Amino acid sequence: MFDLKHYMDEKRVRVNAALENCLPNENEPPALLHQAMRYSVLAGGKRLRPILVIASAEAFGGSTDDALTPATAVECLHTYSLIHDDLPAMDDDDLRRGKPTLHKAFGEANAILAGDSLLTLAFELLAGAAEAARLTGELARAAGSRGLAGGQFEDLASEGALPELEALIRIHSRKTGCLLSAACRMGAITAGAGDAEIESVSLYGAKIGLAFQIVDDILNATSTTQALGKATGSDADRKKMSYVALTGIDAARNKARTLLDEAISEIEKTPGSITPLVALAHYIADRTS
Amino acid sequence: MFDLKHYMDEKRVRVNAALENCLPNENEPPALLHQAMRYSVLAGGKRLRPILVIASAEAFGGSTDDALTPATAVECLHTYSLIHDDLPAMDDDDLRRGKPTLHKAFGEANAILAGDSLLTLAFELLAGAAEAARLTGELARAAGSRGLAGGQFEDLASEGALPELEALIRIHSRKTGCLLSAACRMGAITAGAGDAEIESVSLYGAKIGLAFQIVDDILNATSTTQALGKATGSDADRKKMSYVALTGIDAARNKARTLLDEAISEIEKTPGSITPLVALAHYIADRTS
Repeated sequence: MFDLKHYMDEKRVRVNAALENCLPNENEPPALLHQAMRYSVLAGGKRLRPILVIASAEAFGGSTDDALTPATAVECLHTYSLIHDDLPAMDDDDLRRGKPTLHKAFGEANAILAGDSLLTLAFELLAGAAEAARLTGELARAAGSRGLAGGQFEDLASEGALPELEALIRIHSRKTGCLLSAACRMGAITAGAGDAEIESVSLYGAKIGLAFQIVDDILNATSTTQALGKATGSDADRKKMSYVALTGIDAARNKARTLLDEAISEIEKTPGSITPLVALAHYIADRTS
Repeated sequence: MFDLKHYMDEKRVRVNAALENCLPNENEPPALLHQAMRYSVLAGGKRLRPILVIASAEAFGGSTDDALTPATAVECLHTYSLIHDDLPAMDDDDLRRGKPTLHKAFGEANAILAGDSLLTLAFELLAGAAEAARLTGELARAAGSRGLAGGQFEDLASEGALPELEALIRIHSRKTGCLLSAACRMGAITAGAGDAEIESVSLYGAKIGLAFQIVDDILNATSTTQALGKATGSDADRKKMSYVALTGIDAARNKARTLLDEAISEIEKTPGSITPLVALAHYIADRTS
């Protein structure tokens, strides 16, 4: 019986140590900027994306050691996106991972610059990795105007608009699916996997990414601020499109379940050691926080 | 007699065509985000940084063709830094290159995301270049918390503080010197130059970068908004540290001249074809807009 909690705890320790190590020291000038970067990156978090990089590498014979650099790069990039999404001009959120958002704690200019610096650091880290060019291309395509940043743009633009399921799925896919898919691809590339395997983990990542975001919408509608460590009910307050608002809770739960099944079918096609990836997919679809 | 104006015009045509080509089409969704990216990148500008990439490549036997990808990456990164520096939470500027700043024209959230997308695009472009890993490392180090973003942070933190010449030189070096230096290094790397040559163009770039910023301070204190296409007198209004405020106009002019001489001595050490680089250094130190 595979123990996912133990697996995640073990990988999280490695990821946190690598993040601690790759971030500039909090005393190095400009000290306040480096403290801001560390405040957000080292605030905890599930480390789902870096663990997906590692699990995807291990599935095809790669090692945690080799996957750590792309794993930390993906987490730095993810943290930048959270910092900028929380800004007053964007989602204007006050709480993240149970603590004040970065702009609340360090001011808006520092939050913008700390986000910029983390985005840049992600690529600086990849420059030192094996397969640097390929990994850089993967992460940049996932993060840019055709991926993460474009999804956030469309999300903001959709506030108060008439909801359309197709548009919502596109936004969710860009905001979450692109980076989860890239995390899986990057892990597989690190392990030297073939094109068919890379394509399978890519689709797996995209599907669990969409499932993740639908579960996020469900939790936003049903959970408490205390349980999530960030504001809840905010989608409805802001008239943001959400899967729950469009289809209701039950259909949203069914959709997440279908995506989970499809994601697992996708990686079952590969000859890899996929037990952790299957468990991670269940974890994402069944999570309560 | 070398005709710098002709040289710059010729390279600028190539750079502008490459930028036009690498930016997402303005009709591609999210269209407004892509229009915002294009508004800022294609607003004109001297294209000094990409021309430095090309001139540094040519100095060591490289071609304009080979240098175009790193050149466009550097300009995308430079444009991101201008967009974010102009934001209300940062320098809060309304004019840039004679047009409304991006957040004035497209709103603050779009300006943040267009900047993020251009920073990301810079690395996506480098991923497709020869020497991708090295170029990515150079650009990321120049742009991160120890370079450009750190310099902007310290610049904001210094507003209203007691002026110190050493701190000002550090800020100017980070805000401008790092990226100009990286532009020169990246060109030389593209051309396959040796370590000694790369080090020489690196120092050349750092020195003309500092000269550029001192001339900026002089122009800010002495020129008009109409001549510069951006607000003038704003350093004094904001009690920002400026070289002029610390040393007076004459000493600032002398310092820019000394840096110019040092930059030229530096590249004269190399066996390269340095005529365009020498002319560019003069152009920077003598510019009036």
